[in-house]
Amino acid sequence: MSDAVFSYERLKKFTENVFLAMGCSQTHAQTAAKVLTDADLRGVDSHGVGRLMGYVQLWEKQKINTAPTIQLTHETPSTAVIEGDRGLGLVVAPYAMEVAIKKATKVGTGWAAVKNSNHYGIASFYAMLALEKDMIGISMTNANPLVAPTFSTECLLGTNPIAVAVPADKYPPFVADFATTTVANGKLAILQQKGEEIPLGWLQDEKGAPTNDPTILKKGGSLLPLGSDFLHGSHKGYALGAIVDILSGVLSGANYGPWVPPFVNFLTPPENTVGEGTGHFLGAFRIDAFRPVIEFKQHMDQWIARFRSARVVEGYEQVRIPGDCERETSVIRKKEGIPILATVAQDLNHLAKKFDITL
Amino acid sequence: MSDAVFSYERLKKFTENVFLAMGCSQTHAQTAAKVLTDADLRGVDSHGVGRLMGYVQLWEKQKINTAPTIQLTHETPSTAVIEGDRGLGLVVAPYAMEVAIKKATKVGTGWAAVKNSNHYGIASFYAMLALEKDMIGISMTNANPLVAPTFSTECLLGTNPIAVAVPADKYPPFVADFATTTVANGKLAILQQKGEEIPLGWLQDEKGAPTNDPTILKKGGSLLPLGSDFLHGSHKGYALGAIVDILSGVLSGANYGPWVPPFVNFLTPPENTVGEGTGHFLGAFRIDAFRPVIEFKQHMDQWIARFRSARVVEGYEQVRIPGDCERETSVIRKKEGIPILATVAQDLNHLAKKFDITL
Repeated sequence: MSDAVFSYERLKKFTENVFLAMGCSQTHAQTAAKVLTDADLRGVDSHGVGRLMGYVQLWEKQKINTAPTIQLTHETPSTAVIEGDRGLGLVVAPYAMEVAIKKATKVGTGWAAVKNSNHYGIASFYAMLALEKDMIGISMTNANPLVAPTFSTECLLGTNPIAVAVPADKYPPFVADFATTTVANGKLAILQQKGEEIPLGWLQDEKGAPTNDPTILKKGGSLLPLGSDFLHGSHKGYALGAIVDILSGVLSGANYGPWVPPFVNFLTPPENTVGEGTGHFLGAFRIDAFRPVIEFKQHMDQWIARFRSARVVEGYEQVRIPGDCERETSVIRKKEGIPILATVAQDLNHLAKKFDITL
Repeated sequence: MSDAVFSYERLKKFTENVFLAMGCSQTHAQTAAKVLTDADLRGVDSHGVGRLMGYVQLWEKQKINTAPTIQLTHETPSTAVIEGDRGLGLVVAPYAMEVAIKKATKVGTGWAAVKNSNHYGIASFYAMLALEKDMIGISMTNANPLVAPTFSTECLLGTNPIAVAVPADKYPPFVADFATTTVANGKLAILQQKGEEIPLGWLQDEKGAPTNDPTILKKGGSLLPLGSDFLHGSHKGYALGAIVDILSGVLSGANYGPWVPPFVNFLTPPENTVGEGTGHFLGAFRIDAFRPVIEFKQHMDQWIARFRSARVVEGYEQVRIPGDCERETSVIRKKEGIPILATVAQDLNHLAKKFDITL
């Protein structure tokens, strides 16, 4: 079955209508739809509308509150704790990032630790909100356990991504966004769907042995931290995932480690949770809290130009700057439309029918 | 030739005397000696007194100013830029971390971007200064280029380490400290000295091919970012190293990328530098800017206890918490003394003679 292709606007409108049908306010539906379809636009299919069915199912199980009262519950001049009231991460995180940006405007930097939220989609979306304010944006979230710490056979950490967005002058911004694992779970899922082979170093089996069995997660296996094995620095990937977990979960009052609730309906939530919902951690550095904006941006241009002009390994064209691929994809997809996997298109058709919405 | 063993106090006093002989003030000599010998105490030999000869040689070449006027040159309530005046990173970074901590005390978080500094030794030393204030400490630095970005054959990034220290209650703190490469350069150097084999995935040759030649860095080779190759996420390690470089170098006004000056005497400094000296980035989050300290610490205890009790791969005893190994080593070395490699002991003897100091 070949992929369906949708225009960005059409996909966004449809997604907005699904969120409206779930009981979201107009503003929340628009925001959530934008976050989700921007991921598709940028080629991060693993965090786009392919997740929509999952959100609906969690909402049906009353795990997601589509009319949350998102609140700032504690603050200092440069920090805030945000209570997500079990809302979609897609609407809680933009609220929190706005708080961080406002605080940065006033005192140089701003940070928002979020609790009682849900899966927030693509991490870089929030970091990039800082760019237009001439700030560096930072975004991270914990997630349900799929990753084994070095030497363990137990999944205790999520894929816990980090995104950092940095403005430049003539060049497009530097936008890094990566899971703290060898491979993102979403990417793994897509390779599985496409029936492609899983390389050694991504996964381990229930005894901790290397494996290329793509179904190993369902048989007691785990994703591996960035680094793959101890000899190649997996303890660093583990530490990095742990830092994201501590800032997102422990500092905010959300769940952490193995207690982070799943963002899919078919997994059983952990018992005796230690906090509230999923946690995020969002921050912004005002550039001119350090040096004049134009000076900084010109140096970022020089940074980017130097890396782009680096000698390359034979067969490669250019060193890529984090964010290049996603930006290039978004230009193509805005023009040519967004290809949607057949299985995802099926889900969307199902939702269209369910909510009586035109797709 | 067997290793020499020195007591921590004796090694520290000797190191302090070397710094005094170089013209450091009493306070600076004490601080620098403490940073350096604490690394040895914690088993991070690559960042301990083994570097002392290197600092002396850079000072002789007038690359290090032992009587710097360290100054805060720009600030907002939560940020500062620190001018290091070509001082030892070992004295500039503690000053900057103190500024960050003071700002965090007042407004919740504090950040110091440092320019015109030099090699600052062990990253975690500065992050750990936040612990006694019930803060989370963050420390990173850029370094001279030894690492090739993904797809490149050129060294454009340093090993650019990140350290994060988080206090707990009954348990010792969580202290992560890692280079953003597969292996730290210092560790590589020690394996080379010991004549041990270099595994594939640490280094590439001048054409970007995998190699286990331990001398490849001198033949146009490079260290690889955490992840080793693209298939295993080296673009994430590259992005992480780049983030450290941008925050430490571009944001502060220091050098960045290939322009970061070498911290060894025998390498030629880059031409047409783009900033001043080496850069660091230091920060502190006040715990109670987010939630009550005791609550946070008890949850950190629970985090640590849960990870410690995880099922392990056969042959391993326990999942380690970042910082465990270093703390255990420091207990042993405080009691039994610090073993110093024969080549390092030779250097120290040479310095003792040179400055007429008792070792």
